[in-house]
Amino acid sequence: MRTLKITIAYDGTRFVGWQRQAEGESIQGLLEDALAKFEGGPVTVHGAGRTDAGVHALAQTASAQMTCHHDVATLTRALNAHLPEDVRVGAVEEAAPDFHARFSARGKTYRYQIRNTPIADPFNRAYVWHIPEKLDVDAMSAAAAAVVGTHDFAAFQSAGSDTIGTVRTVSRSEIGDAAGLLTYEIAGDGFLRHMVRALIGTLVDIGRGWRPSTSMASLLRGATRADAGPTAPPQGLFLVRVDYH
Amino acid sequence: MRTLKITIAYDGTRFVGWQRQAEGESIQGLLEDALAKFEGGPVTVHGAGRTDAGVHALAQTASAQMTCHHDVATLTRALNAHLPEDVRVGAVEEAAPDFHARFSARGKTYRYQIRNTPIADPFNRAYVWHIPEKLDVDAMSAAAAAVVGTHDFAAFQSAGSDTIGTVRTVSRSEIGDAAGLLTYEIAGDGFLRHMVRALIGTLVDIGRGWRPSTSMASLLRGATRADAGPTAPPQGLFLVRVDYH
Repeated sequence: MRTLKITIAYDGTRFVGWQRQAEGESIQGLLEDALAKFEGGPVTVHGAGRTDAGVHALAQTASAQMTCHHDVATLTRALNAHLPEDVRVGAVEEAAPDFHARFSARGKTYRYQIRNTPIADPFNRAYVWHIPEKLDVDAMSAAAAAVVGTHDFAAFQSAGSDTIGTVRTVSRSEIGDAAGLLTYEIAGDGFLRHMVRALIGTLVDIGRGWRPSTSMASLLRGATRADAGPTAPPQGLFLVRVDYH
Repeated sequence: MRTLKITIAYDGTRFVGWQRQAEGESIQGLLEDALAKFEGGPVTVHGAGRTDAGVHALAQTASAQMTCHHDVATLTRALNAHLPEDVRVGAVEEAAPDFHARFSARGKTYRYQIRNTPIADPFNRAYVWHIPEKLDVDAMSAAAAAVVGTHDFAAFQSAGSDTIGTVRTVSRSEIGDAAGLLTYEIAGDGFLRHMVRALIGTLVDIGRGWRPSTSMASLLRGATRADAGPTAPPQGLFLVRVDYH
């Protein structure tokens, strides 16, 4: 039995999300079905992050245990030949026997894109949240900086989380602004369900002047979901990278 | 009667092209239908370039004559409210009575994108021609430079052109290369039907080593369509800009 580490990029637009569901196409389902063909039997694929419907990945990481003897270059080519064009395998690598994409992960980086111009960009609409009203980027940046550190993120967790505890450590939380495209990058050791999108919903409330930028710090001291802003739409979110030891 | 100049961006993926057809959605048709609502009667819209099915525009220019009294900011907002998200009006401006988007144009700039990496990018697949085999960019650049000047482009014209003559003047013809994304930009006083895509098909033949880079110069001295390379696929092509006096 060998353990494989698979790096995958996908446009999440038309999928039900990473995880296999009773109905609709999932990335996990597509990968498992493709690998089962090469294996000649069922294969279970574990992903580092369970991206929701409509959320994208630049480099999601998955692990799988298989007995097939194809070399990794052949597996990469064969997977890409089987997968639809909106899912591309960047690399298949041999991993240590105990490697698990989710449990071995040390941290993840997510990016969220907001197009903040009066008129939307027809080429980017599947990858941004378009907000026509001018946002106060300085206020959003100040609030984003307050997210760095170890906090109780209970106010930024949706129902349905299967994780234990709501304390997480964020190492980076920054707003970038390039010609009307606002980019939020956040890196941390773990993320609760909808955490990045709830942070963005709150940061946008702050950018609109509906909340003071100082409100972020108090939300991070054990507030409830109702105290924070709305969950931002999925299409602006990208899983950028998963880090391992 | 007033004359309006309208600047439009569109993702051409799902359209039959700029021009109104018996079947399918066209950009011209959508604009004419939206303007007819504000005018209370039929409006004819002329476009600077008749982009084909699947071809995009960053700033196509159109002209229309109307009697309605809405100011240009209101018309811009109303058009964007009526048009689908893959078509966005960037500006509506008052123009001189004799302004005509096509006949007043002095020149146009087109861009063609090729993704030249072994694995495709799932986020860009509707906007590039993906060629996995490594292309010889130096040979393509040398051939592209030979296109600058006044030449007979008969070898790069598809059947169905309604223009007179095949001599055109190209002021810029350059290949750029940024991390596997090859970009071809061409500016000129006029373009024959499929001219940019036939030039790209020929440049790619040169990049693959199937033709010498010196073959471009001889194709520009009255060769026939069969002598040049194939017509490149539409989704890599963008009408970038239309220039007026």
